[in-house]
Amino acid sequence: MAHDTAVIDGLQYCNWSREVFEQMRAGGIDAVHVTATYWENARELLSNIGDWNRRFEAHSDLIMPVETADDIRHARESGKTGIIVGLQNCSPIEDDIDMVAILKRLNVHIMQLSYNNQSLICAGCFEDTDPGISRFGRQVIAEMNRVGMVIDMSHSAEFSTLEAIRLSERPVVVSHANPQFYHDTSRNKSEKVMLALAESGGLMGFSCYPFHLRNGSGTGIDEFTEMIARSADVMGAEHLGIGTDLCQDQPVEVLQWMRNGNWSKVMDYGEGSVERPSWPDPLPWFRTSADFPNITRGLRDRGFSNAEVDGIMGGNWLRFLDDALQPAV
Amino acid sequence: MAHDTAVIDGLQYCNWSREVFEQMRAGGIDAVHVTATYWENARELLSNIGDWNRRFEAHSDLIMPVETADDIRHARESGKTGIIVGLQNCSPIEDDIDMVAILKRLNVHIMQLSYNNQSLICAGCFEDTDPGISRFGRQVIAEMNRVGMVIDMSHSAEFSTLEAIRLSERPVVVSHANPQFYHDTSRNKSEKVMLALAESGGLMGFSCYPFHLRNGSGTGIDEFTEMIARSADVMGAEHLGIGTDLCQDQPVEVLQWMRNGNWSKVMDYGEGSVERPSWPDPLPWFRTSADFPNITRGLRDRGFSNAEVDGIMGGNWLRFLDDALQPAV
Repeated sequence: MAHDTAVIDGLQYCNWSREVFEQMRAGGIDAVHVTATYWENARELLSNIGDWNRRFEAHSDLIMPVETADDIRHARESGKTGIIVGLQNCSPIEDDIDMVAILKRLNVHIMQLSYNNQSLICAGCFEDTDPGISRFGRQVIAEMNRVGMVIDMSHSAEFSTLEAIRLSERPVVVSHANPQFYHDTSRNKSEKVMLALAESGGLMGFSCYPFHLRNGSGTGIDEFTEMIARSADVMGAEHLGIGTDLCQDQPVEVLQWMRNGNWSKVMDYGEGSVERPSWPDPLPWFRTSADFPNITRGLRDRGFSNAEVDGIMGGNWLRFLDDALQPAV
Repeated sequence: MAHDTAVIDGLQYCNWSREVFEQMRAGGIDAVHVTATYWENARELLSNIGDWNRRFEAHSDLIMPVETADDIRHARESGKTGIIVGLQNCSPIEDDIDMVAILKRLNVHIMQLSYNNQSLICAGCFEDTDPGISRFGRQVIAEMNRVGMVIDMSHSAEFSTLEAIRLSERPVVVSHANPQFYHDTSRNKSEKVMLALAESGGLMGFSCYPFHLRNGSGTGIDEFTEMIARSADVMGAEHLGIGTDLCQDQPVEVLQWMRNGNWSKVMDYGEGSVERPSWPDPLPWFRTSADFPNITRGLRDRGFSNAEVDGIMGGNWLRFLDDALQPAV
């Protein structure tokens, strides 16, 4: 499953281990956007960055930090996987605008403006009401634009997302979600959002997390690629990517923490339910990063051209990051 | 007062303002080691770094951040003053070894292992007993050696200082202190320490803080340069620098906080006393950075060669930093 350009997974939060990094290599993945925060504050994020620094030392034959998009090319050339560190929430910047530049300097390159809930910046996708972007949020968007930190609205609410796209002078992404026209949940995205993302010059990464898919863990690769083909009709294939949301080897306690953080006294089941409180079974054709070529094969079978497949599998992410990770000129 | 190499002040903690930065330029200072911490924890230091980032934006015509020693040359060439950020205490790394690399990435290049008191690493100069370097401290020294963060023992106790020099594989500095043979206080340094610093390849910067000088605020430039000449006999002129400890425009509350941090319920007067609780009057020949040429003139009058004067005024610091700020090979 050779590609003429880098292969990139737009989101993972695995229980990181040497085996997981070996599977990235086995799957031919040249870069992965990894999650370093769900609910952490600034100090807690520093410890998570410290953990990544230890992994870069311990597994320097398999992974390397990504500072600019060219590092993804360097990773590809040297047979490693570049790690793009990102945050699923804005909690680490607390209420401090100066933290944006400081985190960028620490190679935090992508940040979601909210995660499911209302943040200091905007509403999450599970809130009943959506006030859009706050006063602080407008300053954060401008500062992220300035330093070259990507705005990711994967877990944000619709009006907030549209407002972020309108206010941002640079393209916005949804790193991992699926279209509502395919599976109508508040966590997935409307055609209106998809069009606005494309018009901004951003992209959407398709998720392999079963709760984002109409037939859950029973979803076939053919159905997945049909969803992508219909999305290409809406956004154009050049605005599509992959963001698998792979959460491999994580115990249920991590899922509970992702859903409940420190904010909930009662168990919040997120996209699950009392009856389905735990991780969904993985898709049979996407259990680990080593299965990445199954997606490539599926896209080719769907009839996408080689150039389109290369774009969706990583070329579009790479072209986007070439500019997006640079400071504003 | 032209110099053939960079002019460097090895320590200041002023109430930073555009006027202070203009005085640096007026004094021909190409780089200053500035203090970003006395007692702050990790999160508080991030805010102080944020403050510096704002200053770099607001006064980009006068100052610039120093990432490597070559940036000091770039500052000199462009008529700016390079800012070398350092810490007077190890409090920001808390008990977390990973913080050393994270702070280095944020351009924290110099760290004292203790400030007056016992730290998690070693004893300060005002402690009655001195256990030397702790278990954590040995790991911190190795990690500072690895990433290229300078070990500064200005406010540390004697045995701790000698042990740090012995354990460190790279040279150690005392950025700002004077010899005990000239003025015998626990804050100044013994000949034993001075010799060990020189043998390590490090250096000592002479302080213009009146409490470090035998005749306090009445100390003349001739007495100051005589102290330097006698130190050159001990250490060799190539291991000498300037570290003025200039604390310009600071209110007495800042002095009280430097002395008491959060640790003391009763007023600690440090090098002062109940009778002299406040800042000493500045030396008449060193009130601001603009007076730096008075030191150059004094050293020339003392009979140092031009090369020796250039070295003491900054060349020795620059040569030292050329290697010291690089990661270990």
